[in-house]
Amino acid sequence: MSLGCPLCDTDGGLVVARTPRFRVVRVVDGDEARRFPAFYRLIWAEHVTEFSDLAVTDRHACMDAVTEIERVLRSLLAPTKVNLATLGNVVPHLHWHVIARFDWDSHFPAPVWAAAQRDEWPGGAAARLAQPLPSVDAAMARALATC
Amino acid sequence: MSLGCPLCDTDGGLVVARTPRFRVVRVVDGDEARRFPAFYRLIWAEHVTEFSDLAVTDRHACMDAVTEIERVLRSLLAPTKVNLATLGNVVPHLHWHVIARFDWDSHFPAPVWAAAQRDEWPGGAAARLAQPLPSVDAAMARALATC
Repeated sequence: MSLGCPLCDTDGGLVVARTPRFRVVRVVDGDEARRFPAFYRLIWAEHVTEFSDLAVTDRHACMDAVTEIERVLRSLLAPTKVNLATLGNVVPHLHWHVIARFDWDSHFPAPVWAAAQRDEWPGGAAARLAQPLPSVDAAMARALATC
Repeated sequence: MSLGCPLCDTDGGLVVARTPRFRVVRVVDGDEARRFPAFYRLIWAEHVTEFSDLAVTDRHACMDAVTEIERVLRSLLAPTKVNLATLGNVVPHLHWHVIARFDWDSHFPAPVWAAAQRDEWPGGAAARLAQPLPSVDAAMARALATC
């Protein structure tokens, strides 16, 4: 726990899975959720800053879980690409962004943090996904149950 | 090999280490190299698109190497933060960005792909690093020799 860290103090999204090591949330607020609805984050439970702060077994477990998230997204949503990133410049508590990207999304092929390339999908991009997000959440919870 | 893939056809940067599975390059061209001089990429040798395309042993080896790169950057340059990302929206050949970030760099705390937050360090940011980049390259080559 680190005093004043938003990822120690709050869930940081809609929790879809939780293990002793980490939780996985879906981003449900703001521009990001509207533009990139299949945007998940793996948030490490312990307050560590850098990926290399983890012991090797934890690092492998972390990336095995990130891989499971990616596999569920690929399997259910067939994204054009999956983007993985751990930045933490603003919130230095280890978390991985796992984002399904589509060639029709507002920023593709630019990173989600760059300037938009086109208008947003009217009414929110979630409506264009191949599956409703609660189904994706449920599949992800099942896939992560063994992590 | 994939016809017309720039990461199959070219090294994609200054090669600092090469193993049967991957090579590690430093970004030496353009705005990125001038603004973020300690910007390395691990480029997977085989043309695969997504991280989850790798077998588990390869995934672990890949992230062990990414971790070594991060450790060298932390040890020699004491960055404010290290950023890791595999996006591949433009070049869908698996590669990891490993970027040392500093609170004085032109974009911090925004991602390197977002809008600049301040002017660039005059004359190029490399001059402000704690070590010359060839020393960092050499340390990285040594660290990756056992990967």
